[in-house]
Amino acid sequence: MVKEYIHPLDAAVSIQPSSRQSDRCIKFEGAPSPDYQNINGQLGGITAATMLNGALQHPEATGTPVCFTNNFCEPMADERFEIAVRLDRGGRHTQFLSIRMRQRGNIIASASAVLSTRRNSWSHHPARAPSVPSSIKIDPAPVGTSPQWLNRYQFRFVEGLPDLSPREDGDIRSAKSILWINDWPIRPLDHLSLLGMSDVFFLRLLQVRGTFPPMSTVSMTTYFHASPDEIAAEGEGAVLGVADARVFHAGFHDQCAELWSKDGRLLVSSTQIVWFRD
Amino acid sequence: MVKEYIHPLDAAVSIQPSSRQSDRCIKFEGAPSPDYQNINGQLGGITAATMLNGALQHPEATGTPVCFTNNFCEPMADERFEIAVRLDRGGRHTQFLSIRMRQRGNIIASASAVLSTRRNSWSHHPARAPSVPSSIKIDPAPVGTSPQWLNRYQFRFVEGLPDLSPREDGDIRSAKSILWINDWPIRPLDHLSLLGMSDVFFLRLLQVRGTFPPMSTVSMTTYFHASPDEIAAEGEGAVLGVADARVFHAGFHDQCAELWSKDGRLLVSSTQIVWFRD
Repeated sequence: MVKEYIHPLDAAVSIQPSSRQSDRCIKFEGAPSPDYQNINGQLGGITAATMLNGALQHPEATGTPVCFTNNFCEPMADERFEIAVRLDRGGRHTQFLSIRMRQRGNIIASASAVLSTRRNSWSHHPARAPSVPSSIKIDPAPVGTSPQWLNRYQFRFVEGLPDLSPREDGDIRSAKSILWINDWPIRPLDHLSLLGMSDVFFLRLLQVRGTFPPMSTVSMTTYFHASPDEIAAEGEGAVLGVADARVFHAGFHDQCAELWSKDGRLLVSSTQIVWFRD
Repeated sequence: MVKEYIHPLDAAVSIQPSSRQSDRCIKFEGAPSPDYQNINGQLGGITAATMLNGALQHPEATGTPVCFTNNFCEPMADERFEIAVRLDRGGRHTQFLSIRMRQRGNIIASASAVLSTRRNSWSHHPARAPSVPSSIKIDPAPVGTSPQWLNRYQFRFVEGLPDLSPREDGDIRSAKSILWINDWPIRPLDHLSLLGMSDVFFLRLLQVRGTFPPMSTVSMTTYFHASPDEIAAEGEGAVLGVADARVFHAGFHDQCAELWSKDGRLLVSSTQIVWFRD
């Protein structure tokens, strides 16, 4: 018997209907993925993708993702979780959903999704992708094999390769990184993988200062700017990621990310706010 | 008897504890403000500020706002609303709250707030405010008196004064606006007014194309980058607003905004996603 191949991302976001259903909430169960472990619990973008997967499985979820906000209340423990998806507002064209993830009854993450049927419309692209060499001309960066999630992506840096050895030289570097990103093993792009990729950029504090204080993303919001057909047309291709930050102050810093298609279309924009103690 | 003066913003965001309390939700009641009416219901930023006000009145809400996401499910009708605030995750330093606004039992807006005790930390400001004339050197723009909310702000444009007469010339203009903004009448800045100001920028589709198709903000996320003391120190001053957009495609466009202090510190960054039919 041949075992069907399942990509680690599909395994990570896979959830099962829970036996504890209620009238107003659709519930699922799942487990953290060993493939996407970060220093302190599972990579946030994969937790987000798992919760989005729950929203997409709601029976009234007919649209595709327009935006997704995920609040990370605490790191995921190494035990099973429950996801509750509630339809706040349904509609033929647009649906609003709230999602909560619990472990041992405590909410460890909350999220909201807006889904919509994407239509053709007036199209205008004032922002431009940075001009960079194609991904095949750049070798994957040796960013290490631990934590485990680093093995699940390839990063080809155009600019801003992080110096991952902690340094105390006081040198303040640019917050900006530009890099080609693909799942590893490669996998066709979809909303779930793009949401995961929104969170693969090293936290900008590390990038800028080279120190490793306690830090974690508190909230991340991701917007999807392409239609499902356009995302599917990208196939297994790499996306061009741009990450930056504007301000580190009063215990938090922002982080902005963009994911561009090979032909220079903005597929995703994402922002997050990061707590740090430094 | 002298009637105490109440600023229109404080009147707009004012809510009263509801008689229908539950164990897990704190509930409030309120009404749309005639002072902040937009073309189709109340200005979204004021609805957001009203919901944030509900979160801040939760008895376990000891922190101040770090981020706030508001999903606008449908325009506010001209009738009373209820706000339900639920503490998803409490803590001494950080609290996560979910907020839902209902009219006639239907959810018309959902939101999430992260509050935290802001501390002194390493501080770094790689982003810079644009170099502009001071607000007192610019006259308020005559942006009209209807809808009503236009009377509640003064806008002093440095760049990107919108052409509010619908035009069909096909000319595609820059999505960027730079302008000084203050409440009118003036009012000391706080998190509520800054959240309102995050949403005072004309939707970028109007700015760029000059057409008025059906359009509305679907979701807005706002990050606060200054401590409460720093915001209070701004007094009744104007903030420098920068608005822009990157992509209009498949029925939606993004909109990014920044609010800078007079001395060039980033107080707020905000993003929204806007539905349009065009």
